Amino acid sequence: MRLVVVGGVAAGLSAAARARRIDRSLEIVVLEKGEDVSYAACGLPYLVEGRVRAAEQLVVYTAGHFRRERNIDVRTSTEVVAIEHARRRVVLRGGDSLPFDRLVVATGARPDTTGIAGAGLPHVFTLHTLRDGVRLRDFLREKRPRRAVVAGAGYIGLEAVEALRARGLDVTLMFPGHDLLGRHDPELARVLIAHIERFRVDVRAEQPLRSAAALDTDLVVLATGLKPNVELAAEAGANLGPTGAIQVSDRMETSLGSVYAAGDCAETTHLVTGRAVYLPLGTTANKMGRVAGATAAGARERFPGVVGTSVVRVCGLGVAVTGLSKEQARQEGFEPVAARIESGDRARYFRGRPTTVELVADRRTGRLLGGLVLGEDGAAGRINVVATALHHRLCVDDFEQLDLAYAPPFAPVWDPLLIAAQQLQKAM
Amino acid sequence: MRLVVVGGVAAGLSAAARARRIDRSLEIVVLEKGEDVSYAACGLPYLVEGRVRAAEQLVVYTAGHFRRERNIDVRTSTEVVAIEHARRRVVLRGGDSLPFDRLVVATGARPDTTGIAGAGLPHVFTLHTLRDGVRLRDFLREKRPRRAVVAGAGYIGLEAVEALRARGLDVTLMFPGHDLLGRHDPELARVLIAHIERFRVDVRAEQPLRSAAALDTDLVVLATGLKPNVELAAEAGANLGPTGAIQVSDRMETSLGSVYAAGDCAETTHLVTGRAVYLPLGTTANKMGRVAGATAAGARERFPGVVGTSVVRVCGLGVAVTGLSKEQARQEGFEPVAARIESGDRARYFRGRPTTVELVADRRTGRLLGGLVLGEDGAAGRINVVATALHHRLCVDDFEQLDLAYAPPFAPVWDPLLIAAQQLQKAM
Repeated sequence: MRLVVVGGVAAGLSAAARARRIDRSLEIVVLEKGEDVSYAACGLPYLVEGRVRAAEQLVVYTAGHFRRERNIDVRTSTEVVAIEHARRRVVLRGGDSLPFDRLVVATGARPDTTGIAGAGLPHVFTLHTLRDGVRLRDFLREKRPRRAVVAGAGYIGLEAVEALRARGLDVTLMFPGHDLLGRHDPELARVLIAHIERFRVDVRAEQPLRSAAALDTDLVVLATGLKPNVELAAEAGANLGPTGAIQVSDRMETSLGSVYAAGDCAETTHLVTGRAVYLPLGTTANKMGRVAGATAAGARERFPGVVGTSVVRVCGLGVAVTGLSKEQARQEGFEPVAARIESGDRARYFRGRPTTVELVADRRTGRLLGGLVLGEDGAAGRINVVATALHHRLCVDDFEQLDLAYAPPFAPVWDPLLIAAQQLQKAM
Repeated sequence: MRLVVVGGVAAGLSAAARARRIDRSLEIVVLEKGEDVSYAACGLPYLVEGRVRAAEQLVVYTAGHFRRERNIDVRTSTEVVAIEHARRRVVLRGGDSLPFDRLVVATGARPDTTGIAGAGLPHVFTLHTLRDGVRLRDFLREKRPRRAVVAGAGYIGLEAVEALRARGLDVTLMFPGHDLLGRHDPELARVLIAHIERFRVDVRAEQPLRSAAALDTDLVVLATGLKPNVELAAEAGANLGPTGAIQVSDRMETSLGSVYAAGDCAETTHLVTGRAVYLPLGTTANKMGRVAGATAAGARERFPGVVGTSVVRVCGLGVAVTGLSKEQARQEGFEPVAARIESGDRARYFRGRPTTVELVADRRTGRLLGGLVLGEDGAAGRINVVATALHHRLCVDDFEQLDLAYAPPFAPVWDPLLIAAQQLQKAM
């Protein structure tokens, strides 16, 4: 019995490793079209910044490790050009083919630079693969550019802004519309833009990029979003979902028998709205990959979905979100009420700093719908409490009762989360 | 209509403030036998350490503030010596009495030094009131002691050890039995003792203190536990619960009509075991106080109980617990399974440090029962996720699916909580 995995980064290798754990006798082959496997793509901005000194530091495991330690045959520079589902085989570039009994599609995503002229110019970069990161880092070292434009205000764009400012470049951030981090939240946008501007970044909202070539700058980073690599699966007949990514069950089954999909090429379920969502993140890719591997190896595991949690550092500020913003909740048909508070994140004599917490709930049911935490420290820890609450459909009055930890070095006696919940309760 | 509150620290003032918010016309009188109100008792170790420079920094609000800003009559140095329930009045030291319509008993707790000879000697201290903290701080300044003994390994004892070591004293920590932080957990005890010993503290387990007078030392801190101040309520006829503290409903009603109790004098419900528990902590006191005030003012609010969350810094190490340890779970009739893992708390290039996570679950039901997090940073944030899960009776397989935040400055891609959950799942 042979399991073939297409793609050797987060989801693909998680699938392979999980399948191996469940079935020691399975033959497992991972086909990766790039030269690198198992790298921490989220570390790329810090390679650019210089905090990560060598690209190798971002490689979690090598292909050799998988072969030697886990009996997983990882082949790099091996591109799959077709899935022949009826014949249960994949066709490789060059014409060879490889039969499979089970197939995991973990083809990932690619930067979406559709409609941008000059995306291929030597001074224009994306930040998606390890090679992308190395190329940008080397360009910075060798060409010593002074001015940069970052197009796109998702988390990669904002991390790129921080990294380039840290290297001393004059940075312009431009993005279409008014939203940052893909969050419809005008107040968040206002706060973040003001924060970024304090680091002397030229921020330009409502500026979609049409031509990288036309910009008067030394360097352009295109962080204009990701597009799922669905072509292989779609051409083989797998259904795509409403988001345009590959549709999968909670066991990562595609519409094709014995074919599973996971990671940035697939959609998942948003547990707050109950609807399909495309949120390509490393944590989700790993979780989906594990379940795809388990299913492919014959075990019963499931991945129910996400609540939309993420955190990003923007010029030193931790920005963490989960669930829906008030505006998003309205669009989803809820009747949202929000409370936003600012409070110290610990005792003042332990360098307590202001932290902002917003909670959003549905007026009709009292159910918590989302949250936002801004702070230097502790933003991730606090958003995780909200995320846990969202997973289990807590109401505001339950949330207000949470027995959270307190000691002066770590938190104030009324945690900012509870203060926000009390405010929200009043507003309901 | 007059509400009288006995006790003016955490629970008492929370009750008064909440009652005022609900009913602007209520007459509210707070009677505090000490000279100070509304102080942050949890900051006392840091006053001793010197990090808090003036005792006033620990006073959150003054009696004057409550009078002026909230129309609450706070009387300090006013001791209630009896509650005459039938006549609906309290009797004050000196013989005056004060009628009430509603009464909140927030008499707090006192250090339990029963059976310890020499507890009243000038070089022997407890660390409970603001005066205690000031007295110890002044003693350190004036007498410049070199050697100290701390008796008791609860959180106050361990914070006192850290504070006295920070001031350069030779410190001996002695305690009866083997448990630290009131947690039956031999492995935790082993790790913590080893950690404290690295700070050159002489740690002596199985050493109950019988006589402070007999110790050859310059200074003794008695941190031998707290005893609820139940006498006033008990003499008036209020029922005590199985823990010896005042029994209250989830609305903070005592067995006496129109009399409510909250804070360190009262017990509450442990939501994991469903049984009464006495856990005197500032966060719980504030929450109970709010509900007592609401009930006294005629509103319907409830405080369902706690899951036993706490965090303490021990010689720089964050130690956070919630729910039950494996041993405690066994004693409560569960069939506990535990998994303990060590992992980095964020990316290495962001100064990732080892953090330890233990999760405990019930083999029969899969239900999560408790957790422990040790780490320099993030211990409070992570334990709060476990606490939220305990409030809502999550099973291990639910917990494993949590959509937690990830970015290199804040967490590793597999959060230590999720790694622990995966290990626990395997062990079930």
